[in-house]
Amino acid sequence: MGSGKVYSYLDHLECGRCNARFAADVVQGLCTVCGSPLLARYDLDRVGANCSPSEFVGRSPDLWRYHELLPVRSPDSKVSFGEGMTPLIPMPGTGSVMGLGRLFMKDEGLLPGGTFKARGAAVGVSRAKELGIKRIAMPTNGNAGAAWAAYAARAGIEALIVMPTDAPSVTRAECALTGAQLFLVDGLISDAGKMVAEAVSARGYSDASTLKEPYRLEGKKTMGLEIFEQLGWRVPDVILYPTGGGVGLIGIYKALLECQQLGWVGDKLPRLVSVQASGCAPIVRAWEDRASESTMWEDASTVAFGITVPKALGDFLILDAIYKTDGCAIAVDDDDLLDAQGVVARNDGAFICPEGAACFAAARSLRASGWLSESDEVLIINTGTGIKYPDTVSVSPPVLQVGDTIPVG
Amino acid sequence: MGSGKVYSYLDHLECGRCNARFAADVVQGLCTVCGSPLLARYDLDRVGANCSPSEFVGRSPDLWRYHELLPVRSPDSKVSFGEGMTPLIPMPGTGSVMGLGRLFMKDEGLLPGGTFKARGAAVGVSRAKELGIKRIAMPTNGNAGAAWAAYAARAGIEALIVMPTDAPSVTRAECALTGAQLFLVDGLISDAGKMVAEAVSARGYSDASTLKEPYRLEGKKTMGLEIFEQLGWRVPDVILYPTGGGVGLIGIYKALLECQQLGWVGDKLPRLVSVQASGCAPIVRAWEDRASESTMWEDASTVAFGITVPKALGDFLILDAIYKTDGCAIAVDDDDLLDAQGVVARNDGAFICPEGAACFAAARSLRASGWLSESDEVLIINTGTGIKYPDTVSVSPPVLQVGDTIPVG
Repeated sequence: MGSGKVYSYLDHLECGRCNARFAADVVQGLCTVCGSPLLARYDLDRVGANCSPSEFVGRSPDLWRYHELLPVRSPDSKVSFGEGMTPLIPMPGTGSVMGLGRLFMKDEGLLPGGTFKARGAAVGVSRAKELGIKRIAMPTNGNAGAAWAAYAARAGIEALIVMPTDAPSVTRAECALTGAQLFLVDGLISDAGKMVAEAVSARGYSDASTLKEPYRLEGKKTMGLEIFEQLGWRVPDVILYPTGGGVGLIGIYKALLECQQLGWVGDKLPRLVSVQASGCAPIVRAWEDRASESTMWEDASTVAFGITVPKALGDFLILDAIYKTDGCAIAVDDDDLLDAQGVVARNDGAFICPEGAACFAAARSLRASGWLSESDEVLIINTGTGIKYPDTVSVSPPVLQVGDTIPVG
Repeated sequence: MGSGKVYSYLDHLECGRCNARFAADVVQGLCTVCGSPLLARYDLDRVGANCSPSEFVGRSPDLWRYHELLPVRSPDSKVSFGEGMTPLIPMPGTGSVMGLGRLFMKDEGLLPGGTFKARGAAVGVSRAKELGIKRIAMPTNGNAGAAWAAYAARAGIEALIVMPTDAPSVTRAECALTGAQLFLVDGLISDAGKMVAEAVSARGYSDASTLKEPYRLEGKKTMGLEIFEQLGWRVPDVILYPTGGGVGLIGIYKALLECQQLGWVGDKLPRLVSVQASGCAPIVRAWEDRASESTMWEDASTVAFGITVPKALGDFLILDAIYKTDGCAIAVDDDDLLDAQGVVARNDGAFICPEGAACFAAARSLRASGWLSESDEVLIINTGTGIKYPDTVSVSPPVLQVGDTIPVG
């Protein structure tokens, strides 16, 4: 390769655990040495020589503005609904209630399909298309499957999706309407994962499960890049992230390391907080034990269905990010997160998803315990819009007949 | 005022029918002379002298980038969730099926609350806050009420919302969670409107009904501004818009006239198409009669609930925009629009709302009739995300038990 500008500076893939090296331009799954996820590595020297943050300013407000640090080689391979550059908004009302003077929310509900899953699907499907993949399969808690089904339809790729019967019902409609083959399983995502693994090995699907291909993570990484750009290329004090598979947190940390190596942000580390539900908190348990991996959580259950992941493949990467940034992991009860959902709606007007609400509940607890101070700049990732979870709100407004007078003072 | 730069160049309000002039910096409703909607007028000479499209490039990717042409005087008055700059995406799959070589969709589903109603609410509530309004009331087909409730909560303004029992059920949750006073009415939006009018006159609410205050329209206008900017400050051949109250179409036309007067776009007019459902098509009937106003549509009913508006207050403005741009009005059947929703999802991966789907069905009809040609650049406004309308998709995927083999080849 010469020294000129190219669209992507992807160089190779590297095992996140044993550091084995793999070629990037053929289809790869997990590390063939140790079975761990592969991470995309870029030629950061050339990125630094050919690109600087000031260049992003004039580009389209979507995640592709960071194409040098994304794995898609050609803009022609992009499968896009215009996703990215979600707003980072102040939450002064909620902050005031919770004693947090600098509380912000990155609202991932403003992505195609209403969740942050669009990021991973956009980059993952684009790269799959570029590498010639024709059929993908994946287990999902609903939203990832819906996102991958949509992008796959746009790319002309077949999608096989398996989700628990308890997944948000609208995600069924999303998968079905876009033409995916959809199956429900009377179990958890881990059960769906085993069934997909069988289909992959026996019937020639490409496995798009969380971290079993290297590129979903690169899409999620753009959350971090956007946060840094939106803050003027610096980091906040704390980032709270609702953790199921944890790809977003791993991605934000990966973005941080790449940007630090490029000299685009300073040396300061944001404390990364992994938020889980009390009914499924394997990362929290591992963090409390100072362990480097988690163990399977039995009988997992929470209203924050998206983070019902009993054992994440990337658990060691999540925990590493928490330890390295002096962060923490915390679990919140369902009652507490549903209450926080209402606090956020009434005080700042935002209808957020239960997973995002878990982070607000966690922030409240961490402030009460003193782990967060009033002056900390705290950034919460709301991973989806509340409108995908109408059942979290119970409402029975009065019904009037035509001609009635509205009974208010 | 001096000649320096100011945030907004709002100058006065003008009746859209009789051209009577009103002061802008006090609360105004309808024209006190003839009862028609008031339109915001700007000092376009000063806008032209102090501002040009190249300046927008470095601004945040939200609708406030056009603040010179918006009515909010101070950035401190902004009530914002970061709304705007929704993507304009190619729809090659659907275009190919429909024989349209240059088909594009502006996806308003990527706004807070998942619909284009966020635009009007953002600007309307911001201006209401700036003018000191404490309580608003409005009738709605669901999404506008949900949007205004959210922005009102963020602004600390009380909201009274009345919607038909048939409105999308998730919009009830949106209103209730953000703390609005919500009532359902066993009737249509026109029935809700009469009840709200009574509450307004008897109990001191400010009327936020469609076009009964001048600023919602200004928010909707930004759809037009964004389209022109996204196309490099030019217009497409045709824009299709699903028409209930018609504020978006009126707004796009208003943006066009303002930009033409500023010299920011050429003289070319995009043909504006008003799309309605066969079950509620007062604008189409009026257009077919070459009338300047519509008459009340009896027994209105369609699955595209957002456009179930039997008589729009701004009907004369909608019809004027259609006539002046050599556009048309067209009605589509529910079966046809639901079919189009599937065509779009399967061929381009997007899960759009029934109202947006009506536009795709209309485009298909207009292509078949020859009104649209294969080479026309056609832009469809998808006013909301399909995820707010799960019931438009019927899906019953197979349920597997843990350990089952997925029954695919």
